[in-house]
Amino acid sequence: MKSITFIGAGNVATHLAKAFFNEGFDIEQVYSRNIDNALLLADEVQSIAIDNLVTLNSNADLYIISIKDDAIESVLQQVLDKNIFITHTSGSIPITIFEETGFKNYGIFYPLQTFSKSKTINLLEVPFCIEANENEDLLYDLANKLSNSVHLVSSEQRKKLHLAAVFACNFTNHMYAIAEDLCSKNNVNFNILKPLIRETAEKITLNHAKDVQTGPAIRNDEKIIANHLSQLDDLINYQEIYRLITQNIQKDK
Amino acid sequence: MKSITFIGAGNVATHLAKAFFNEGFDIEQVYSRNIDNALLLADEVQSIAIDNLVTLNSNADLYIISIKDDAIESVLQQVLDKNIFITHTSGSIPITIFEETGFKNYGIFYPLQTFSKSKTINLLEVPFCIEANENEDLLYDLANKLSNSVHLVSSEQRKKLHLAAVFACNFTNHMYAIAEDLCSKNNVNFNILKPLIRETAEKITLNHAKDVQTGPAIRNDEKIIANHLSQLDDLINYQEIYRLITQNIQKDK
Repeated sequence: MKSITFIGAGNVATHLAKAFFNEGFDIEQVYSRNIDNALLLADEVQSIAIDNLVTLNSNADLYIISIKDDAIESVLQQVLDKNIFITHTSGSIPITIFEETGFKNYGIFYPLQTFSKSKTINLLEVPFCIEANENEDLLYDLANKLSNSVHLVSSEQRKKLHLAAVFACNFTNHMYAIAEDLCSKNNVNFNILKPLIRETAEKITLNHAKDVQTGPAIRNDEKIIANHLSQLDDLINYQEIYRLITQNIQKDK
Repeated sequence: MKSITFIGAGNVATHLAKAFFNEGFDIEQVYSRNIDNALLLADEVQSIAIDNLVTLNSNADLYIISIKDDAIESVLQQVLDKNIFITHTSGSIPITIFEETGFKNYGIFYPLQTFSKSKTINLLEVPFCIEANENEDLLYDLANKLSNSVHLVSSEQRKKLHLAAVFACNFTNHMYAIAEDLCSKNNVNFNILKPLIRETAEKITLNHAKDVQTGPAIRNDEKIIANHLSQLDDLINYQEIYRLITQNIQKDK
């Protein structure tokens, strides 16, 4: 496999396209609805930018669709050549979408990581979840060129993993955002909390999260809990989250 | 300041006593209601174990109470010599508790970190929050012997910081626990999520958490959200948490 075309030019497509380009792959074309976005990425990986799927050629050995989940189906319908080897990078769209839109050779190429334009990622440590109808080995070997952590994961497992990731990453980040907001509202330096945040994330690499739970909820310290809830009297949303998570930690004991 | 007595022999007392012992301090006495716990720690820091506060001597330059928040007041009442220099390590008990129980020379010595017996901590990076009625400089210098991150924090600020820490640490850990439980219920390897967890925690050291929020909630991806909620139909607690946090991320946009 030598050449790859990217359908999409967002965070994930950008990280992957650059990584493959650095590994010596030809990036054949870069498609985006927005030609400026396509040009931006195409420029970085010496590729050709297109903003119309009619101009998508069939020269690439692999096509990677990396766009918003809810746009995947409609884009797949617009891809005319149904004989290309095509994949998507979504955590939650099942592999059956390819058969439903008429493709014969397809798979999933899902990097399980949170990508931001503002932060580079060491792809070597990013787990890639691979699935394919025919050419699983090809995709597996391809992912192995970028990462040391490649896994064969079925659509059903991937769906569960994606749900778990929402808790582990998206909801966790929202907890950080609430903490930061509480600090800023009260003129306290949020930086003081950063070592705690780092340690909390590190702790579970060696322990089960459930076994290292600390805080007033797990200690059943009702006095502190009541005090915290009253501090949140003016922030009803936070109060509701505090109450619900506290109850759930106590139930889980 | 040369000698310290610990009232309490739990996680925090153990970490602090060992650190001070290694710095050349004499650990005068170690008190615990449970003599076995007192003996365990006293043994490690060449100290004397006691389980009755009547036998607490007045020889130490500093007394550090490190016990459950709701036991602090009653223990302070049992300490007979009100002229000793006494501190506690709690994030949420205000400094006024010392005056209320008759002490004259007191302060707060609060290491803002999550301590577990199963994991050693590099105290150098742990923020210490210091407050005192008279000898703030003494406590500040003392904390500086253990840590590179010492802060003067008022009781009011400390209360807010502690509340923020519950979100940033305790609730975050519960999100990990839910993710781990979902993986184990569905036979998916939780290890695949660990780089994501690490990256999520690292990301906010350089960005505001709010600015790096990812996931279906911030994208308003209602199809995925509905799919995730339906996956949680048999796990009502998790479903409720999913719904509430998702709503709050969307409100905050």
